Amino acid sequence: MPTMSTLLWTKCWLLLVAFSWGHVPPSRGHVPPSRGYLPPSRGHLPPSRGHLPPHDQVARVARFIAHRCDWTSMATISSHKPVVGQPFSNVFSVSDGPWGSGSGSGVPYMYLTRMEISVQDLEVSPQASLSMSLAQTGYCRQHGIDPQSPLCAHIILSGSVLEVNGTEAEFAKKALFSRHPEMMDWPSDHNWFFAKFNITQVWVLDYFGGVKTVSPDEYFQASPNRKHH
Amino acid sequence: MPTMSTLLWTKCWLLLVAFSWGHVPPSRGHVPPSRGYLPPSRGHLPPSRGHLPPHDQVARVARFIAHRCDWTSMATISSHKPVVGQPFSNVFSVSDGPWGSGSGSGVPYMYLTRMEISVQDLEVSPQASLSMSLAQTGYCRQHGIDPQSPLCAHIILSGSVLEVNGTEAEFAKKALFSRHPEMMDWPSDHNWFFAKFNITQVWVLDYFGGVKTVSPDEYFQASPNRKHH
Repeated sequence: MPTMSTLLWTKCWLLLVAFSWGHVPPSRGHVPPSRGYLPPSRGHLPPSRGHLPPHDQVARVARFIAHRCDWTSMATISSHKPVVGQPFSNVFSVSDGPWGSGSGSGVPYMYLTRMEISVQDLEVSPQASLSMSLAQTGYCRQHGIDPQSPLCAHIILSGSVLEVNGTEAEFAKKALFSRHPEMMDWPSDHNWFFAKFNITQVWVLDYFGGVKTVSPDEYFQASPNRKHH
Repeated sequence: MPTMSTLLWTKCWLLLVAFSWGHVPPSRGHVPPSRGYLPPSRGHLPPSRGHLPPHDQVARVARFIAHRCDWTSMATISSHKPVVGQPFSNVFSVSDGPWGSGSGSGVPYMYLTRMEISVQDLEVSPQASLSMSLAQTGYCRQHGIDPQSPLCAHIILSGSVLEVNGTEAEFAKKALFSRHPEMMDWPSDHNWFFAKFNITQVWVLDYFGGVKTVSPDEYFQASPNRKHH
């Protein structure tokens, strides 16, 4: 798509690769392990990370999933030909807080560049939707639950993406870089910025009986790790 | 949301559970293993499933990912309050062909019910977008690649969802039920039907340099497992 973006991204990565790893861009299967992605199944994940709350404690389930997932599929309204006005699904890393810092903030933070195709969509139409599923973790697989089953708990967040600054950007940086250390090395002239997903509605599919909704207030008041009465 | 759906889904599953497993609905962590989800990492996956094609063979990469992923995030334009007209991201199981049958058809087949919230969106506005990422498989994790990195190859399909019938529905059934055997037991009065994603454009993010596009013709002519010259 954008030629400038293409050139810059290529150039920067080539330079980065040349400097950091002393050779041409990594071939498939030889991606250098330094500062690699630290997925929940290893690395920084504390041994006790809690359990999926009971399905009827819907807000807690939502907070659990939001903290547990480190990437999301974001739906936007496309601003790009030939699909202008059509929905567009894309993949982004997220973090609502560092591992080991408790239960997370519930706010999905993102690290974005305006060179990115979906971020360009957001500049035209800021409304978006994030889906996160325990299918992304080992949970559904381990329990033999199909990704489309309501028992393979997943959430959908409606809202919009907002740039954050100041102390909130500091928190976003800590939340993201601790779980996605590779971000520290992403090409600086892409003008990365920190953003948050500003939630207006939470949809939860965690059991039989159809989708349930949770208000932002209920969502933020809930704690995935402690019981509420 | 829909009360009928809620009641039916609950009732049917309770009945199914009562008959199949002889007790009340499974509590978390005790989901019966019978006919469970068979993810790519075990079960029906043949030992040699090929390797991710070189990044510059973009159509082959797209076909590899489409065959490798057994679920997708679908973006629709919501038809539900309070987000009518906004993008909506949700999770669905897919299959473009059974494991072990070669390289797949490239057509993402789905098993849907009109009780489902995103399927209801499609009845108002059939255009949709699917994203599939190697972050869903072990690939990115094993190679220490961040889910948002272009090296964590992912594709976005633009198009629409169409019901299929006849021999195509037979193929869809084989493709889906072989990889998602749990579907066989889903409540029959939900009026499940087979559908395909009718691709109009393929977007590929598999390397530095920005998103690349592939036409449906290029996509369907490519084979993920054999080289094209």
